[in-house]
Amino acid sequence: MEKIRIGILGYGNLGRGVEAAVLQNPDMELAGVFTRRNPGDIASNAAVYAADQLAKMEGKLDVLILCGGSATDLPIQSPQMAKQFHIVDSYDNHSQIPAHFDACDKSAKETGHIALISTGWDPGMFSLQRVLAESILPQGSSYTFWGKGVSQGHSDAIRRIAGVADARQYTVPVEAALERVRSGENPELTTREKHTRECFVVAQPGADTARIEQEIKTMPGYFADYDTTVHFISQEEMDREHRQLPHGGHVIRTGITGDGHIQRVEYTLGLDSNPEFTASVLVAYARAVYRLAQEGMTGAKTVLDIPPAYLSPKTPAELRATIL
Amino acid sequence: MEKIRIGILGYGNLGRGVEAAVLQNPDMELAGVFTRRNPGDIASNAAVYAADQLAKMEGKLDVLILCGGSATDLPIQSPQMAKQFHIVDSYDNHSQIPAHFDACDKSAKETGHIALISTGWDPGMFSLQRVLAESILPQGSSYTFWGKGVSQGHSDAIRRIAGVADARQYTVPVEAALERVRSGENPELTTREKHTRECFVVAQPGADTARIEQEIKTMPGYFADYDTTVHFISQEEMDREHRQLPHGGHVIRTGITGDGHIQRVEYTLGLDSNPEFTASVLVAYARAVYRLAQEGMTGAKTVLDIPPAYLSPKTPAELRATIL
Repeated sequence: MEKIRIGILGYGNLGRGVEAAVLQNPDMELAGVFTRRNPGDIASNAAVYAADQLAKMEGKLDVLILCGGSATDLPIQSPQMAKQFHIVDSYDNHSQIPAHFDACDKSAKETGHIALISTGWDPGMFSLQRVLAESILPQGSSYTFWGKGVSQGHSDAIRRIAGVADARQYTVPVEAALERVRSGENPELTTREKHTRECFVVAQPGADTARIEQEIKTMPGYFADYDTTVHFISQEEMDREHRQLPHGGHVIRTGITGDGHIQRVEYTLGLDSNPEFTASVLVAYARAVYRLAQEGMTGAKTVLDIPPAYLSPKTPAELRATIL
Repeated sequence: MEKIRIGILGYGNLGRGVEAAVLQNPDMELAGVFTRRNPGDIASNAAVYAADQLAKMEGKLDVLILCGGSATDLPIQSPQMAKQFHIVDSYDNHSQIPAHFDACDKSAKETGHIALISTGWDPGMFSLQRVLAESILPQGSSYTFWGKGVSQGHSDAIRRIAGVADARQYTVPVEAALERVRSGENPELTTREKHTRECFVVAQPGADTARIEQEIKTMPGYFADYDTTVHFISQEEMDREHRQLPHGGHVIRTGITGDGHIQRVEYTLGLDSNPEFTASVLVAYARAVYRLAQEGMTGAKTVLDIPPAYLSPKTPAELRATIL
């Protein structure tokens, strides 16, 4: 069997997760890790190249998985790389997805490639579940809850406060809100009612912790609309208890059918490692991209455009016989 | 906007559910209910015709939804109707799906139709979730739990025992087994460990209830491998408390990524009405069939072959902007 040759651009948490996920899939092999750092500094068992070597990799990679960030990397890299490769990215800036889609679609169509964008779990698997549940239960309400898990954006926001040495922020869904939603009550929930925010902070020696706590709790956009708890801890406790990046959440839709029957659909993720799960989703969709490309499909796609059977290493006939 | 014209063949619980679901979808209309009973006996607001009138409906229906049973109706009807119409069925005899697929594929391809088979929730949405989760987490174990809900097959089996006037059987997942699975322990579970069976029985006057209970609990294939509870109740209590057809269940997969991170995916359905939810799934997939047919696709399909966006009344661009 010819293996699907995967390339990785960017070797942070997500890139390392993709490397690990490729190893779990016998129909794939890692053709190379590409980095803007010094390749000699990358601790990978794969071949590591400088990112500019990608220009010479045409025909040597089947799918390039982009593992950069959504703020500055992917808006540039995805349309650019889609001129040369079939790509998969995890672009997660929801409001800018249509523009990102259009930019990738143009590059990909012009050069005969596929660009699968915004894959992962949200956007990604959660989006897919929202579309399925809303299509099946048109008369109803949908809810997405995140957590319990680490929000890296909120952790970074705390670290920017003067006097903060380190910080980790957990987003926590409110159990009472979950129960109201599951009951089929269709509640209108405020931001504050859906999630709480729990912060673990290492203060610099001599810093005014009361002021830091106040600055966190009143930070607009990040914390002001939430019930926020702040715990000051030592760097040792931070390193020991908060090194992992767990996350997860729930997509719930309740709908009404017939003469008042309540129907509930709930999709839950409980993830020990957010980046490794996201990476595993990207890798499964890389298989789908490879197959669709072999069928001659081109242009930008999202998870909503992909038949589920294309994700599986099994054939459609095997799936019908064993898993349907 | 031209509406999608839906036909219903068979007007039991599922057919009535399809009628109700079509009314919730403004892009659809009910073109007719077709029955093997006397059309005058059917209490529907739609036009009701004798089943043999379907021969005259070519060009007047966009998708025919087959609402008969898997034991004897669908193996005949689906391949036959796929010669004339695009069809959707809920064929649920798992071991015979490959043969049913092939028979429908042949009819549908010869005549340029689509036959989407084995839709609903299991097979159907549960199958889709199994394929997604196994593709994303190749190193792991999958579990399907059913209930709490009414098993009509098991209820019928009890009713066939001498001295039984009426019966209703609930399949109940064992909470302790669910918790072991969710923990990522990957337990090997016996049939008895996964589900219990709870039976409500109305005995005929003077019947030997001890004998009935014994016959239920030892019935091979249905109850012998389970911990089974039997409650004898009055017909009044049966009619008051057990008229509904609730069901649901869980598809759970836990997998390992990286250096031992446990990742859990869980899909849960909590359904007040099993037939109405199944019907709602069939109707959403009828929309997908209509669209795929417009693109010129033919042959047998399952939920695994359908891009999720095709289920939604929204356009792909609307979905990307609002829900992705």
